Amino acid sequence: MNREQLLSTLRAALASRDSTVIPAVAKASHPADVASVLAEFEPDEVRTLLRELPAPERAELFGYLEAETEVEVAHYFDRKELAELFLHMSPDDRADLFNRLTEERREMILPALAQAEREDIRRLALFPEGTAGAVMTSDYATVRPDFTAPEAVEHLRKVAPDTETIYQSYVVDENRRLIGTVSLRDLIVAPPHTRVSDFMQREPIFVRADAPREEAARLISRYDLIALPVVNGDEKLVGIVTYDDAMDVAEDEATTDFRKVGAVGELAIGLKEAPIDLLYRKRVFWLVALVFGNLFSGAGIAYFEETISAYVALVFFLPLLIGSGGNAGSQSATLMVRALATGDVVLKDWAGMLSRELTVAALLGATMALAVSTIGIVRGGPDIALVVALSMLVVVIVGSVLGMSLPFILSRLRLDPAASSAPLVATIADAAGVLIYFAIATAVLGLPALTN
Amino acid sequence: MNREQLLSTLRAALASRDSTVIPAVAKASHPADVASVLAEFEPDEVRTLLRELPAPERAELFGYLEAETEVEVAHYFDRKELAELFLHMSPDDRADLFNRLTEERREMILPALAQAEREDIRRLALFPEGTAGAVMTSDYATVRPDFTAPEAVEHLRKVAPDTETIYQSYVVDENRRLIGTVSLRDLIVAPPHTRVSDFMQREPIFVRADAPREEAARLISRYDLIALPVVNGDEKLVGIVTYDDAMDVAEDEATTDFRKVGAVGELAIGLKEAPIDLLYRKRVFWLVALVFGNLFSGAGIAYFEETISAYVALVFFLPLLIGSGGNAGSQSATLMVRALATGDVVLKDWAGMLSRELTVAALLGATMALAVSTIGIVRGGPDIALVVALSMLVVVIVGSVLGMSLPFILSRLRLDPAASSAPLVATIADAAGVLIYFAIATAVLGLPALTN
Repeated sequence: MNREQLLSTLRAALASRDSTVIPAVAKASHPADVASVLAEFEPDEVRTLLRELPAPERAELFGYLEAETEVEVAHYFDRKELAELFLHMSPDDRADLFNRLTEERREMILPALAQAEREDIRRLALFPEGTAGAVMTSDYATVRPDFTAPEAVEHLRKVAPDTETIYQSYVVDENRRLIGTVSLRDLIVAPPHTRVSDFMQREPIFVRADAPREEAARLISRYDLIALPVVNGDEKLVGIVTYDDAMDVAEDEATTDFRKVGAVGELAIGLKEAPIDLLYRKRVFWLVALVFGNLFSGAGIAYFEETISAYVALVFFLPLLIGSGGNAGSQSATLMVRALATGDVVLKDWAGMLSRELTVAALLGATMALAVSTIGIVRGGPDIALVVALSMLVVVIVGSVLGMSLPFILSRLRLDPAASSAPLVATIADAAGVLIYFAIATAVLGLPALTN
Repeated sequence: MNREQLLSTLRAALASRDSTVIPAVAKASHPADVASVLAEFEPDEVRTLLRELPAPERAELFGYLEAETEVEVAHYFDRKELAELFLHMSPDDRADLFNRLTEERREMILPALAQAEREDIRRLALFPEGTAGAVMTSDYATVRPDFTAPEAVEHLRKVAPDTETIYQSYVVDENRRLIGTVSLRDLIVAPPHTRVSDFMQREPIFVRADAPREEAARLISRYDLIALPVVNGDEKLVGIVTYDDAMDVAEDEATTDFRKVGAVGELAIGLKEAPIDLLYRKRVFWLVALVFGNLFSGAGIAYFEETISAYVALVFFLPLLIGSGGNAGSQSATLMVRALATGDVVLKDWAGMLSRELTVAALLGATMALAVSTIGIVRGGPDIALVVALSMLVVVIVGSVLGMSLPFILSRLRLDPAASSAPLVATIADAAGVLIYFAIATAVLGLPALTN
């Protein structure tokens, strides 16, 4: 069934109160597809549809809903329904949902849960959002080092229903310290008499629970892992992050960086679902903040008012010059923000990158100066052409170096380099451009600068 | 060993020509780490180091090198070394490397390969870069539908050394048409007497070999797959894309979009490795292209020269007004480019997104108009304040709608929405801003527009 068919089938089922439709639909379609269609319904309608499903399917489908939708729908569940849902959800999804519920709902649900789940939720809910601990799951498989390969496989067969993945399992000592990992592939391929300790991967790659979740995603991507073990401060194994969660984290982080580079604030929600007032608040901050930068450009212009009155033709080139500096700066900044985010460039590369940037910027500036000087001759004569060409060269170099350096500086100050957005760099480059342009003009054309 | 230790150990090994070091290092460290350190050496040094490794380890390490480094190092290999390398590389890495070799090197290597590999390379090399076919591997496992679960596991055990993953295997009919998939987890959990056809996933999710590689990555992420089957035009199974390759594709695509949004061209290489002349060429195109947009702004200013001469104070607000329109437009464009890339927003959402954008932009514009009108009163009196406030409102709305619409229009024309970069949107918004500002000024202040 395609999306349109799914949608109309579910609408019909709701209208006719036919309780047999959704179980059939859930059997025939992938939960990701059903969940994406459910986003079109009202929360109470989603609840009506979901209650017709067997509990495990309901929980699986629930895990594919958008975070916002999850909370809205959960609001319509009574205590018994919510407890049943929690019982069947994977631990990480469950802890996430729990964290997003209102205080009141949390208090309501806790007594309805079994001791083990309650503790599991409390433990996972401890880790602040954005950490590896907050995206990990506690449903992982451990095997003993003295298991033979077939014993380990048999053990995994038994625990499979309760684990997120059986493709990687973990070997811990008596203190739950992680001493090795073993893949199901290795277990299957190993000769029957060999023991886990004979071929397990010692000194495995792991992440600390309080590390940023991007770090977990980066390790998984770098080492092509299926799952990454997570340890606490005592180096005890507390969970794993699976590759599919790492993909979601990487996508989220890229989206966040995109929005920052576009001078929109952080927005932990899809663009289509974001309420208008949230979008307004996130965007107005930077727009107003940048006003001050632009006022600076205006002040620069006011300072050189006499030069401008004498040579109004100079104003013709103003958008071009400050625009080009801003554009070159935006280029450098976005290149650098992404390179820092992917680890392609690190802090200590600064000096090397700066000298490269200077070379590239000088070449770019010279090209632009050449292009613009011909227009300068046509519109204002050789003097204006000289002013415009010189300004272009300097403005492009300054803009580029600024755009390249700002992400580094922010990173050095332990701030997010992505905050050096294209509009921020462009605004600073604009102000610098105004000063450079009119200063050069005043010098070359021999005019007094100060007007008041 | 950390990075610094690895680096100095390998440098020492090169200097002392000690051939025992690199095999020991390769045993103790992850190939991703060794490869990242090798990037610091010259290609001929890398070759010297690599030749001391056993062929399978050498090929594995090679697969972790950056594409550029791979080609440079391969250039130093003689025919025998290259053939041995090709024999041990995974089919997708091998085809990629083959595609990047010079014509001459390709001709040299082909006769040295076995028939099967030659055909495999030719087949994989057929798919244009950027398609699912170009990132897939042909090392996948198939199982017969009449296998019992233990028979299938036993079969996978045998083929494991030659397959990229055994966690997903594929069921094909006599024409090699894909009829189902089965996970190793299901095989392990299934009762021993059941057959693959009893529990295989029918109507599996797949991708066409000529589909864009992003689509493969998106399907893997959406459905949490370990591997995605790839079929040709006849619906025959030709390969699989694994989750780790999908992660690399998603990261690459995000980087590409970043660079486009920053008005840098496509750059299939890390920022640090990119040669200066490549960076220059990629950046100069957009910088020069945007000159024309800025000339348009300049022409707008020239057109209103008389207004400007009469009210030089208007120039003070010029950077602020056009800057704010450009900033609002950059925000909208980056939000939309990313939303289209992740599939959060699709083409048919246009009307809905437009009306939301109008609301948000009107609110933003009104806020900015209010803020700027107070400055207008101080610097130019109530008339100027009115002009500036009105212009701000219109400029922010026009910039936002422009920034939001451009990615949609490009997408509709089957062009890349990411080409609507922040600088492009800002430049168009600038030109529109100049016209709006001075048109409103001329109207409100009652001046003649035309000067020549």
